Order: sequence, then structure tokens, then C-alpha cells
Amino acid sequence: MRILGIDPGSLICGYGVIDKTKTGIQLIEYGVVKAARKHKTIPARLTEIFLRLEQVLERTSPEIAAFETMFYSKNAQSLMKLAHARGVAMLAASLYETAIFEYSPKEVKKSVTGNGSASKEQVSFMVKRILNIDETPDFFDSTDALAVAICHSMKAGKINAGPSNWKDFIKNNPDRVIKR
Amino acid sequence: MRILGIDPGSLICGYGVIDKTKTGIQLIEYGVVKAARKHKTIPARLTEIFLRLEQVLERTSPEIAAFETMFYSKNAQSLMKLAHARGVAMLAASLYETAIFEYSPKEVKKSVTGNGSASKEQVSFMVKRILNIDETPDFFDSTDALAVAICHSMKAGKINAGPSNWKDFIKNNPDRVIKR
Repeated sequence: MRILGIDPGSLICGYGVIDKTKTGIQLIEYGVVKAARKHKTIPARLTEIFLRLEQVLERTSPEIAAFETMFYSKNAQSLMKLAHARGVAMLAASLYETAIFEYSPKEVKKSVTGNGSASKEQVSFMVKRILNIDETPDFFDSTDALAVAICHSMKAGKINAGPSNWKDFIKNNPDRVIKR
Repeated sequence: MRILGIDPGSLICGYGVIDKTKTGIQLIEYGVVKAARKHKTIPARLTEIFLRLEQVLERTSPEIAAFETMFYSKNAQSLMKLAHARGVAMLAASLYETAIFEYSPKEVKKSVTGNGSASKEQVSFMVKRILNIDETPDFFDSTDALAVAICHSMKAGKINAGPSNWKDFIKNNPDRVIKR
């Protein structure tokens, strides 16, 4: 199963692609789209992000795209810019018919480091360790994107495994019902 | 000059196309993309909006795309959904190499009705009147989109016509300087 993790931003958009096999997970590629320098307007940045992500999707053909759920920043201006970029990144993934999953920042941190409140540095350290990356990527955005992909690789298969409600649980686990 | 006005939303995205000629403005087409019913997920809605706007752009070949600047709603969830859709709409316009302009809701209302605080009903009434639309569109989203296009048609040409600062104003209008 090939998973593309995306960490969108209006200036820098991180991405990372991994394969999940029976024996473990393997790094395919990672990087960032830097849209800031050449492209000053929001539409030009969005176009740069979209076209570059299209290339990644074309090149790596992931089946899954994983995003972090949005963090509600207090700054509406930043939130808005981020959401524009995130919409475009989701569109790119959707046009390539990947299945799209979302995980909270806490879930991602917990999957990768065991601690839902881990720092960016800790996440980056563990991502590099899990995927045997020697170099230190220039931006946390790429390791953050890989972290979301790793999170999906760990959660996938477990999703929908649990009972969705109490009634189903009782139905599927009659021996767990204590009859008095 | 052909202008596409877009009023993005995650459920309904309004659009309207007008031509500005020497003698006035003329309606080309208008409508809405309703993404709500079939498509339940955000990525599927974004894809629907993008593909439908691509068709409009392909069909009408506007030179300009006009958007309202974003309204900072107190509800971060709505703001985020709106911004995802707006990012995708801007991307579509940008990929078709239109020049993209933004106007504040107040500017748009003022251009169309003369009143920066006009209601949606007043804006819709004036848009219908300006463009000789007989029917009552189902959604304000389409008349709102036309309103942004009309706003651009009125502002275009006037942009950059005014002095950008006081120094330039004095330089360009020496007769207005009162010498004591």
C-alpha cells in the first residue's frame, strides 16, 4: 500500500511517500513545494502547489493520501491561507483518485513518537529513524508529511476493525455479556 | 473585456460571466455548482467545484476572474470550509490564466447598489436590473457572483488611476496646493 502524506501550507507544502508492506514501511520520496519566492500572489502559489503535487502523484501513484485535520489557529488570516492551500492539495489528491484520510495532529504525533504532545523536533527525529533517513531535511514540513503517512500506515487495517457502537459490540461479542 | 465573478462556497458555488463593452455590460451566463447532494466528503465537493468551474472557464474564456475578499466569520469551521473551496476556485481561474482581482464585500455592494451595507436581496434586485434578468435565480450565490463581476467592470480602468499617496497627489495636482 502506497501512502502520500501531505502537510499543506501557503508558502511551503511538505509531502512524503511511503510503502507499507507486510514486513514494514519503506521510504519512497519526500520533499517540499516552496511557492514563496517566485510567486507572490495567492492564486500563483496555489497553482505552483497544485502542479507540483500533480507531478508527485503522477510519479508515485499513491493509493492513499493522508492529511492532518486542520489546526484552528487564532489568526484568521493564516487559517484562511492554509485552508486555501489545503483545499488545492486535497483537490490534487482527489483528482488522482486516491482515498483521502485525515488524522488529528495529536494522533499523528502519538503514532510516530508515542506522545501526542511531541515537539516538531521529536517527530522529525522519529520519522528519520523509522524510515532510515540519514540527512536532515531542510524543512519540518517534509518530515511532518511523512509523519502523517506513517500514522496512516499504522492505523490502516485497524480502521473499522472495532465495533462502531455498543449494540454491534454486544452482537459480535455475546460471550462478553454478563447474564445475571 | 469578459469577466467571471465567483462566489465560492463548500456547498454552493455561484458564478456569473459578463462582457464589458464601450456601451455597457452584458450578461453571458450565470449559475451555481451545487456540490452538496451527491458528494459528501470535502475532497469530493472540491473536485465537483473545480471540474464545473473548469467547464465554465473553457466555455466562456474570461480574461478576468473576480472574487470577494474573505469575510472573517467567527465560526472557524465554516471559514475553513469556505477557504478550501475558494482556494480551488482560485486555482481553476489561475490555471486558465485569467487575471484575478479581489474586492471587499462592501466595495461590491457599493458598486452595485450605491450602498456598502445593502442586503443580499437588494444586491440581487440591482444585479437583475443592471443585466436585464427576468427570472429570479434560485440562489443568491449566482447574483452575488454577478455582483462581483459588475464591481470589477466598474472599477476596471479606474484602478491605479488615482494617486497612490499624498506626495503623488500633490505632484499631479499642483493647482490644488494652497500657497499661503
